[in-house]
Amino acid sequence: MSAISPTLDGCLAAWARASRPSPLQRMLSLTARPGVLSFALGLPSPDLFPRDDVESAAAAVLRDDPLSLQYAPPLARMKTHIVQLMAARGLSCTENQVFLTAGAQQGMSLLARVLVEPRSRVIVEQLTYPGFRQILEPFDAEIVEIPTSASEGMDLDALARVLATGPRPVLLYTMSHGHNPLSISLAAANRTRLTELCARYGVPIVEDDAYGFLQYGEALQPPLAALDANWVCYVGSFSKILAPGLRQGWLVVPEAYARALSIAKESSDIDMAPFTQRILAAYLDTGRLPTHIDLLRREYRTRRDAMLRAIETHLPAARCRIPEAGLFVWVELTHGVDTADILDRALQQGVAFLPGAAFGQTAPDAARAMRLNFSLATVPIIEEGMARLGRAVAQIQASRRRSHG
Amino acid sequence: MSAISPTLDGCLAAWARASRPSPLQRMLSLTARPGVLSFALGLPSPDLFPRDDVESAAAAVLRDDPLSLQYAPPLARMKTHIVQLMAARGLSCTENQVFLTAGAQQGMSLLARVLVEPRSRVIVEQLTYPGFRQILEPFDAEIVEIPTSASEGMDLDALARVLATGPRPVLLYTMSHGHNPLSISLAAANRTRLTELCARYGVPIVEDDAYGFLQYGEALQPPLAALDANWVCYVGSFSKILAPGLRQGWLVVPEAYARALSIAKESSDIDMAPFTQRILAAYLDTGRLPTHIDLLRREYRTRRDAMLRAIETHLPAARCRIPEAGLFVWVELTHGVDTADILDRALQQGVAFLPGAAFGQTAPDAARAMRLNFSLATVPIIEEGMARLGRAVAQIQASRRRSHG
Repeated sequence: MSAISPTLDGCLAAWARASRPSPLQRMLSLTARPGVLSFALGLPSPDLFPRDDVESAAAAVLRDDPLSLQYAPPLARMKTHIVQLMAARGLSCTENQVFLTAGAQQGMSLLARVLVEPRSRVIVEQLTYPGFRQILEPFDAEIVEIPTSASEGMDLDALARVLATGPRPVLLYTMSHGHNPLSISLAAANRTRLTELCARYGVPIVEDDAYGFLQYGEALQPPLAALDANWVCYVGSFSKILAPGLRQGWLVVPEAYARALSIAKESSDIDMAPFTQRILAAYLDTGRLPTHIDLLRREYRTRRDAMLRAIETHLPAARCRIPEAGLFVWVELTHGVDTADILDRALQQGVAFLPGAAFGQTAPDAARAMRLNFSLATVPIIEEGMARLGRAVAQIQASRRRSHG
Repeated sequence: MSAISPTLDGCLAAWARASRPSPLQRMLSLTARPGVLSFALGLPSPDLFPRDDVESAAAAVLRDDPLSLQYAPPLARMKTHIVQLMAARGLSCTENQVFLTAGAQQGMSLLARVLVEPRSRVIVEQLTYPGFRQILEPFDAEIVEIPTSASEGMDLDALARVLATGPRPVLLYTMSHGHNPLSISLAAANRTRLTELCARYGVPIVEDDAYGFLQYGEALQPPLAALDANWVCYVGSFSKILAPGLRQGWLVVPEAYARALSIAKESSDIDMAPFTQRILAAYLDTGRLPTHIDLLRREYRTRRDAMLRAIETHLPAARCRIPEAGLFVWVELTHGVDTADILDRALQQGVAFLPGAAFGQTAPDAARAMRLNFSLATVPIIEEGMARLGRAVAQIQASRRRSHG
């Protein structure tokens, strides 16, 4: 009987040994230095959180519901609220299609658990939300990247070529409105073509609509899920439209997914946090969310416009499109510039952003791009931060001219 | 270019197609019928939740912390609170070993994700918490069951034989105090032997201590983690000692696990719910938790004793041991009785319990056993429910005598 004593590190599963430091943790530590004005993360504005309403809801729940702190199944009433909210988003669904989650990230993570197997083929865009790549890490999946542009979104011709060859991908991940990081929304014709392609090849679409309510045009354009209820799994979140600190989100999925999602959720964390869910339901009962979303759209549009003006003033050589939705401007600097270099200089000047390469290493223009968030800071802070960023970029360009001249 | 359109069901991954209905959902629906007094689940008593304290904490957090509804990293202060709580539990640790989770279930689920790979060998007890088996389902693991008895707990000779042969198990799951469902606590000598065996063979122990603070003797006996900080991963929870509706728990693990756990947590649900975590921290700041736990130990001991008296009165032929910890009595009826049959009759009488077989199909005496919870019901309800259960058992036994005579 011989004793084998592996090292403790050796006990960690292969993906856990191999995985890189968490991207979010890295971004947070890079950009959260004191005195730094941050355009780095997708944080909503805390001065717009309805704190008084949440406090009243919490007090009412603790007073009126003796089971608010007990184990409890998901609230049926919450599903009705989601059905109503989805109707306002242009998506008709029933309570049976709604699955409640601890934010969009958990929704996507659970969908991946029920759809992806080891070495499955998964389709993402070349530039995409890093948190979804992170979800895929433990699966050892074959990740196929589709080119995506800041003007058109996903290259659907390239997608059609990928779908026509090779094994069936188990899912395609995309954001049809307020793409992160590009802020592009897909044109109606492209939304139709994308859903038709995926339905034809039997590929479920995971549609991350975290920013879908934050469109800055007159009317909300509908999500992909409105075009195909069979092949699109819609991922929703209260993080950007109410408060991320509540960690509440939802899925709208074909009913066939319900049992598998329940089992995955129950084994992950039993169920929704009953206390927070009841607070959220009590807030939604007041009927104030639609007005609150309108307020956010007005206020974030103002901040977006301030950011666009500041880009014109302080980064005159930069190129960007007006974001139709979401919380970011995607800015491309002149060829040859590397925004990872600029970040160091910007942090010295007291301003932070995320370099384009954080969203995809293979996209041709990512290295000279930066993602600027405009929701967290007020207009005066946006102006001050962009002046700092302008100085950082000018310094880098001056030193490049010196070294080339 | 041929279109492949698998059925939607066909898209679900193999484990999702194969998995049985969630055990918890099934138990909940079986036992939550109106008018039924339930001894079925491990629910704490809602009349003992400190609702006023939670309300004050929520109001203070919303008033004083403008970031309580924002994305936020885990509170450093919470880790200090856990270190202090662990000291009272007999476990000395540092903040760097503490990892915060959404309840014990998430803690175990994350540990499984970083330790288990497809077809890994995993050790559990023959009778164990069904939620842990559920965590293992997607991994397609080789599950080795060790016999466990209501008088001694895990059979350590059998464990030693398993460890001496075959591939290294990637983890062993156990509850050293207040075992669920048996309520046994391991004797000190067995705790030492178990940890030594696992360290010798390099097998991490996942120690589920959800019930460890609810010991009914004078002093708390320490957990396995107090014997070996390298090989024991301690899983803690506020669900039984404060309120499950908050979904807050923690791990105490070797520091080498921290990075992998962070990545797994972030990809699952970004991070701890900042709002609830701040409420919990504000409650812990008041210093009232130790007194609250003492209150629970006194009250649950009273309910346990009422349950034991009622068993003597209404189930005179049954055998059980006095639970030293936890929230359950494990009751064995006479040979030949099947408690799954009794459950149907009991539900007709208006009382629910869980049949022993729900905790393991292979244990020799599980079919004639039942798990009775004594924390949810008050003493009068315990007495009424047990009278109903006594009638159901008597009816079954009378009909057996008729069919055999």
